[in-house]
Amino acid sequence: MKSYLKMSKNELSAEIERLRKKYKKYQGLELKLDMSRGKPCLEQLDLSMGMMDALNSEADLSCEDGTDCRNYGVLEGIHEARVLIGDMMENNPDNILIYGNSSLNVMYDQIARSYIQGVMGNTPWCKLDKVKWLCPVPGYDRHFAITEYFGIEMIPVPMSKKGPDMDMIEDLVAKDESIKGIWCVPKYSNPQGYSYNDETVRRFARLKPAAKDFRIYWDNAYGVHHLYDDHQDYLIEILAECKRAGNPDLVYKFSSTSKITFPGSGIAAIATSPNNLEDIREQLRQQTIGHDKVNQLRHVRFFGDIHGMVEHMRKHADVIRPKFEAVETIFRENLEGLDIAEWTEPNGGYFISFNSLKGTAKKIVDKANKAGVKLTPAGSTWPYHKDPNDNNIRIAPTYPTLDDLKTAASLFTVCVKLVCAKVIFENFEEYHIEEASDAKTQETSDTK
Amino acid sequence: MKSYLKMSKNELSAEIERLRKKYKKYQGLELKLDMSRGKPCLEQLDLSMGMMDALNSEADLSCEDGTDCRNYGVLEGIHEARVLIGDMMENNPDNILIYGNSSLNVMYDQIARSYIQGVMGNTPWCKLDKVKWLCPVPGYDRHFAITEYFGIEMIPVPMSKKGPDMDMIEDLVAKDESIKGIWCVPKYSNPQGYSYNDETVRRFARLKPAAKDFRIYWDNAYGVHHLYDDHQDYLIEILAECKRAGNPDLVYKFSSTSKITFPGSGIAAIATSPNNLEDIREQLRQQTIGHDKVNQLRHVRFFGDIHGMVEHMRKHADVIRPKFEAVETIFRENLEGLDIAEWTEPNGGYFISFNSLKGTAKKIVDKANKAGVKLTPAGSTWPYHKDPNDNNIRIAPTYPTLDDLKTAASLFTVCVKLVCAKVIFENFEEYHIEEASDAKTQETSDTK
Repeated sequence: MKSYLKMSKNELSAEIERLRKKYKKYQGLELKLDMSRGKPCLEQLDLSMGMMDALNSEADLSCEDGTDCRNYGVLEGIHEARVLIGDMMENNPDNILIYGNSSLNVMYDQIARSYIQGVMGNTPWCKLDKVKWLCPVPGYDRHFAITEYFGIEMIPVPMSKKGPDMDMIEDLVAKDESIKGIWCVPKYSNPQGYSYNDETVRRFARLKPAAKDFRIYWDNAYGVHHLYDDHQDYLIEILAECKRAGNPDLVYKFSSTSKITFPGSGIAAIATSPNNLEDIREQLRQQTIGHDKVNQLRHVRFFGDIHGMVEHMRKHADVIRPKFEAVETIFRENLEGLDIAEWTEPNGGYFISFNSLKGTAKKIVDKANKAGVKLTPAGSTWPYHKDPNDNNIRIAPTYPTLDDLKTAASLFTVCVKLVCAKVIFENFEEYHIEEASDAKTQETSDTK
Repeated sequence: MKSYLKMSKNELSAEIERLRKKYKKYQGLELKLDMSRGKPCLEQLDLSMGMMDALNSEADLSCEDGTDCRNYGVLEGIHEARVLIGDMMENNPDNILIYGNSSLNVMYDQIARSYIQGVMGNTPWCKLDKVKWLCPVPGYDRHFAITEYFGIEMIPVPMSKKGPDMDMIEDLVAKDESIKGIWCVPKYSNPQGYSYNDETVRRFARLKPAAKDFRIYWDNAYGVHHLYDDHQDYLIEILAECKRAGNPDLVYKFSSTSKITFPGSGIAAIATSPNNLEDIREQLRQQTIGHDKVNQLRHVRFFGDIHGMVEHMRKHADVIRPKFEAVETIFRENLEGLDIAEWTEPNGGYFISFNSLKGTAKKIVDKANKAGVKLTPAGSTWPYHKDPNDNNIRIAPTYPTLDDLKTAASLFTVCVKLVCAKVIFENFEEYHIEEASDAKTQETSDTK
C-alpha cells in the first residue's frame, strides 16, 4: 500500500472519499461491540465453571493444618493458598499475604495505609506537603486513578520495549525525596504487552531512592498470562533480585487470579519482604478479621497445584490467541506501509498498544464509538487522562467473539485511516516540511 | 447464699480456702476452652453447608437482569442481593451497597475515606488538628481499635438498658465540632445484648451536631440474631427515622451475614441515604472494580428470600440458646445473692456483659486463663483498653460445646468468687465503711 505521506492531495482526497463510504456502510450495520476493557469472554469464564464443584456440601472445608475455613481468622490467608499463589508469583509462601477479590484494592489499601500511617514509621503522606509518583507511559488508567485520588503528583516516564526509562528513574528518585513510588506492570505490560528486560529489573532492584519510604509497586497482573507455548517472556523475579541487591524492602508485588478464574470472584495477593509484611499485618488487623478463606480453599482444590493452573492458562491462551492474531492480521493488512500507525504484538497479557499520528487518538476513538465500537477512551493510558501527543489507543481484543472482533478491528482501521488521511490532507504542508527539508539537505550536501 | 459483703473476716477466709481447693481441681483438668470471641460453633457452621451446593458447574451464574456474575463490574452489588440484604437490614434495596466479606472493613473504609477525602466535600479529617468520637461503653473492641488507629480521640459515653446516655450525646455533639461520629451497636449490643429503646432511636435521628460531617456509625450486626421466638427485641429503623426527622444523611448503617452463613465468607453491606451513597460510590470506584458477585449470588440462591434467612436464624438460635441459658443458670446458681457480680441476660446477639467488683476484672480473666479458659481480655470493652473500674468482662458463650461451656462457666464463677472474696477480705474496712457510715448516719439521725 502507498504511504499516506507519499500521496498527493488529490490521491488523499480520493482515499478519504472511499473511506467515508466504507465507514457509512459500517454505520449501517448498527454494531454494538466493546473493545474497551480487559475483560475475559464467555468461553474463558466457562473454563472455570469446574471451580463451582470444587467445594460442595459434602466437602471438608478444613485446611491441611486443621483450620476450619468456615470460621473467623487467618489474616494472612490459608497456607495452601499461599503455596499456590506463591508458586504463581514465584515467591516463598512466607512472603505472601492473601487478600480479598481485587488486587486493585490491595494497591489502593497499600497507598491508603502509607497515607494514613506512613511506611514503617516514616511520616504519613497526608502530613507531607507534596507526594510524587512515577508513571511509566502509556500505562494502566486504574493505577493512575488511585494516585490521583490521593492527590499525588504523577510524573510520566517513557516506556520502551525494555521497560521504563531507567536513566530518568534513577536520576529522579535519587534527588527527589517527595517521590514515594512508581507504578510498574513488568510483564506483558498494560497496554503494550512489553516485558521488562533483565537490565531493567536489575536496575530497579538497585535503585537508591532519596525517600526511605519509596516503594516499587510491581503489579505482576499477567505473570502467567502467556499467549504462546513456544515463545513466552521471562522476567527476573524482583523480590529475590532486591534481596540479592541488599534492598529487600524496596518492592511490593501484586497479583490476582482475576483473569485466571472469575474477575471479581478470584483471590488477590501481595508478596513482599518480612519487614514490609509485618508493617502491613499490624495495620491490616485493624481493618479486617480476615479475607474469604472458603474462596481461597476453592481455588486450591480446583487447581491442585501450579501445574494445574498453568494447564488452565493454556486453555485461556487457546481462546484468546486467535483474537490477538486476528487483530494483528487485520492491522497489518489494512495499515502496514501507510506510515500512519504502529502497534505492539505481545506474547501475553490482555492488550495491544496502538499509536497513530499525533492529534488523532481522540478523533479515532470517537469515530469508532459513533459506529458502535466502544474503545478505551483516548488519553486513558496517561496520568490525568492527558496524552500530550493524543496518539495512543489501548486495544482490548479478549471480550468480543472472534467474528465481532474482526468486524470491530476492521472498522477501527477504517477510522484510523479516515482520521489520519484527513489530518494529513488538512495539514499537508506541515506533514511534508520534513520531506522538503530532507530534500533541501540533500541538495545542500550535493552542492558541497 | 450469703452476701460476701455480709460475711465476717473469718467466714471470708474459710470461703477463700474452699474456693482455692475448687480452683486447684479445675487446674488439674488441664482445660483448653475459649470464650473470648463471638465465634459461631461447628454446629452453627454446619447449618450453612447447603450453601456450598447453591451454585455448581451446571448453574447459570446470571442475575435476573442478565448480568454475568463471573465477570467484572456492578460496584454496588447485584440487584437480588441488595433486595435480600435490604430485607435483612429493613431498608430499600436502593439504599444498599453490597461490599466484600467483612462489615468491619466497610466501617474502616468509611472512616478511611473521611480521613483521606472528607465527607461530602468537608475537610478531610487528616487535615484537622483534632477529631473526636463518642464510644458507648462497654462496647466493641474492634470498633475502638479502628478509631484508635486513625488517631481519633475517643470519649466514653455510659450505656444503660435504654441505650447510650442521650443527654450527654446531644450536649456534646451540639457544642463540639471536632466530634465526627459515634459507634453504635443498637440491637443486642456488644457486649450487653441491650437494644436501644424507641426514645433513644428517636433522639439519635434528631441529633443536631455542630459538625456537618458528623455521622452515626450504626452497626446493626445482630439485627436478625434472636435467641427466642417469643420474646424478640424490635428497633425503630434508623434510616427511615432520620428521613422523617429531616436528617436523611445522618447515619451509615452496617451489617453482614458473617454470623448467618460463614464468618469471613459472607457478604457485608452499608445502607445509607442517596447523598451518602453517591459520595461513597465516587470514591469506591477508585478502590475496586467490584466485590464478589458470585458469592452474592450464592447467598441469594441459598436463602431464596428473607423468610428463608429468618428460618435459618431459628436454627442458629436453637443451637446457641441452650448455651446462653446454661451460662445464665450457672451464674445464678453460683453468684446470685453474693453482692459481687451482675450480668445481662439478652434476647439475642452473641454476648453477655458481666460486671464484678471494682478492680477485679483483670484478676478474674487472668485466673481463668491460668486454668485453661480463655476470656476476652479485661479492658477490651473500653477505648484504649482502659476500663476505669476494671470490672467489666465480656462473655462469649457460642463457640465451645455445651458441656465445655458449662465447665468454663462454672470455673469462671469460681474465679469471680475467689478474686472478689480476696479483694473484700484484703480491703475489709473499705468495703464496710459505707455500712459503717450508713450505721453512723443512722445513729446521727437517731440522736436528733
